[in-house]
Amino acid sequence: MLAEIITIGDEILIGQIVDTNSAWMARELNKIGIRVKQISSVSDDKNHILKALAEAAGRAKIIFITGGLGPTKDDITKKTLAEYFGVELVENEEALENVTRIFAKYNRPLLEVNRQQAFVPANCVVVPNKNGTAPGMWFDHEDVIYVSMPGVPFEMMYMMEEEVIPKIVATLKLPSIVHKTLLTVGEGESFLAERIADIEDSLPPYIKLAYLPKLGQVRLRLSAFGNDVNSLQNEVDAFAARIIERIGRVFVVDQDIPLEKAIMDKMGDLGLTVSVAESCTGGYISHLFTQHAGASKVFLGGGIVYSYDLKEHILGVKHETLEQFGAVSEQTVKEMIEGALLNFKSDFAIAVTGIAGPDGGTADKPVGTVWIAAAGKGKLLIKKYTFGNKRQQNIERSAVMALSMLNTLLTDVAE
Amino acid sequence: MLAEIITIGDEILIGQIVDTNSAWMARELNKIGIRVKQISSVSDDKNHILKALAEAAGRAKIIFITGGLGPTKDDITKKTLAEYFGVELVENEEALENVTRIFAKYNRPLLEVNRQQAFVPANCVVVPNKNGTAPGMWFDHEDVIYVSMPGVPFEMMYMMEEEVIPKIVATLKLPSIVHKTLLTVGEGESFLAERIADIEDSLPPYIKLAYLPKLGQVRLRLSAFGNDVNSLQNEVDAFAARIIERIGRVFVVDQDIPLEKAIMDKMGDLGLTVSVAESCTGGYISHLFTQHAGASKVFLGGGIVYSYDLKEHILGVKHETLEQFGAVSEQTVKEMIEGALLNFKSDFAIAVTGIAGPDGGTADKPVGTVWIAAAGKGKLLIKKYTFGNKRQQNIERSAVMALSMLNTLLTDVAE
Repeated sequence: MLAEIITIGDEILIGQIVDTNSAWMARELNKIGIRVKQISSVSDDKNHILKALAEAAGRAKIIFITGGLGPTKDDITKKTLAEYFGVELVENEEALENVTRIFAKYNRPLLEVNRQQAFVPANCVVVPNKNGTAPGMWFDHEDVIYVSMPGVPFEMMYMMEEEVIPKIVATLKLPSIVHKTLLTVGEGESFLAERIADIEDSLPPYIKLAYLPKLGQVRLRLSAFGNDVNSLQNEVDAFAARIIERIGRVFVVDQDIPLEKAIMDKMGDLGLTVSVAESCTGGYISHLFTQHAGASKVFLGGGIVYSYDLKEHILGVKHETLEQFGAVSEQTVKEMIEGALLNFKSDFAIAVTGIAGPDGGTADKPVGTVWIAAAGKGKLLIKKYTFGNKRQQNIERSAVMALSMLNTLLTDVAE
Repeated sequence: MLAEIITIGDEILIGQIVDTNSAWMARELNKIGIRVKQISSVSDDKNHILKALAEAAGRAKIIFITGGLGPTKDDITKKTLAEYFGVELVENEEALENVTRIFAKYNRPLLEVNRQQAFVPANCVVVPNKNGTAPGMWFDHEDVIYVSMPGVPFEMMYMMEEEVIPKIVATLKLPSIVHKTLLTVGEGESFLAERIADIEDSLPPYIKLAYLPKLGQVRLRLSAFGNDVNSLQNEVDAFAARIIERIGRVFVVDQDIPLEKAIMDKMGDLGLTVSVAESCTGGYISHLFTQHAGASKVFLGGGIVYSYDLKEHILGVKHETLEQFGAVSEQTVKEMIEGALLNFKSDFAIAVTGIAGPDGGTADKPVGTVWIAAAGKGKLLIKKYTFGNKRQQNIERSAVMALSMLNTLLTDVAE
């Protein structure tokens, strides 16, 4: 079963917002065996939307539309859908009750623009929106299903999870897709490809292997298409096992989860804790850990030590060390990680100090110079990296390498 | 001048990665007066790519293609472009030198798959890739320009900034677009719309106003289209001034920058510093600050205090306070912020403690309960929020509200 996603709104087309909705929807749809054929972002322009709807209907059986349902004048999705289906907009009682309920809850007067949100094309079935005033809409039209939802991510997500996905599963008979992702860190795409070329060549035509590289990590994704989900799963598992055996220590986990989540899972199973001492990563590593539910089981916290003062106060780095060797030095990162282990009483710690840029570099310590330490259970790794001159990348690469070094220490503990 | 963006690769369509490239490209293109008409994400499938290219060429004069240029078998962009243009793939000397140089730099053997990366369609002009092995490609074909670039964000970005944008500017005569964005925080889209309805109604047809809501913030974006950039700018500035006067204190800054950047700019101008004490936000606020160049001028650092121990050790929160009132309480957040101001010696501080969820809630403190404090220069704001049950949203909303409270204190300082 093929689907398409159409996002409506100039926000994406002028780059004001990144389209995170579509990736999330695609992932959820894959889980139930629906493949997304195309994602199209189009402008708040009636004719453009009409054309995109017609093109998508020529390729797919389900079309998901997000955005353009707000109360303001630039939101034209409903009017355009009514024209596309050749119907009128009518007031919907259920949608009006929802709008009224939300405004009553927040003790706010119901404005005329909000009342307009209860109007929907006459041929739609309203999809309730518990988190906002714009109703979702489900249309069956000439053998194609159209689902229109708000662009606000949490409204759309709740609607998909609670209403739309269950309705799709109940309505359609779907084929199966099985994915399996192997997370690797520390080896490039080409080298991995060369090492497993013969395994890749032996894949049957209904199993695909994709390489998904991202800052020091490569995800290997096996996808199998067919009808018998158990046999697909067995075949994919067997190929995955061959690849894991071949690639050895660069393999982290056979799940499609982020590196820091894989590490926390491993540490949680072993009853271990971690803390951080972050300078140039500035809270990014902490954020990576704490975005995941249950982080508090493993992650105790740490110090974000941008200034000399905080390096001394929070971690006990010696003032003389900072004066003599500088904040970006082997000596400082060593005292940072020792301070973290001592003061935060975690089993493991990681410490990072560097020059994220774009300013602050010198001849002997250019922008992108980063010292990283990982330690715990009597072991200590310290390494100097020289990344590039892009701040965000230096922060992300530093985090990935710090996590990779922690993962190396943990592999030794587990073995 | 209209452009389209086509991203190639199953990664986006199965939701493995979020398409951040297109938003970035759209933003850069807007700056030089190029409007993106449509963004399409299509699969690693020859016929689908051919169809998408033909459709885009029917709507736009420049087509940007990213992805599918890696060394592995699922990367079919080059072969498909060669077929689309009806030409052969030929080895390009410049591209081969680049691949060879990169492999020599890292002391790695040049594999046959990498050598293949130097093959390009015969009708292209190679766009150098200083950060990777896949060359960019520029095609002029039947009055439409096609630019194919790698999907790896930093390779694409560098190529756009250093090569493609300068070449476009040098080649084409472009009309003007003027954008102005007003950042507001703390008032909903509908209420803002109602308050400025008459100003919106008085806009000429070549100036559009868009509302871009995001977690407690609304951006108001004025966009003017035409030829005389100075007169467009004057008109947009005049409308912006009317809106700013009307909306009053919910206005933060008349630039399209993030809330935390606006706050840091304001604090930098006033010579003020800030530190943080983060529990449930877990480093996210620190990361927001430190992702921006020059953050160290204003942001000193802080404590990520997930555990009781770290709240006590780093911030000096009293053990009895935690035992008696719990970590998520007015008393604890007050001691956290007092500890931050005292220990980190910043002019201002923000402190956040709450239950991000999805677990950890109780009857009287459900998931989404968050205490936030902002303080400095003798003033202290403490507020309890009750958000929802989605972890990531609770983290983001807490951060926005903490920044909003800090902004309120700063507005008083500045006046």
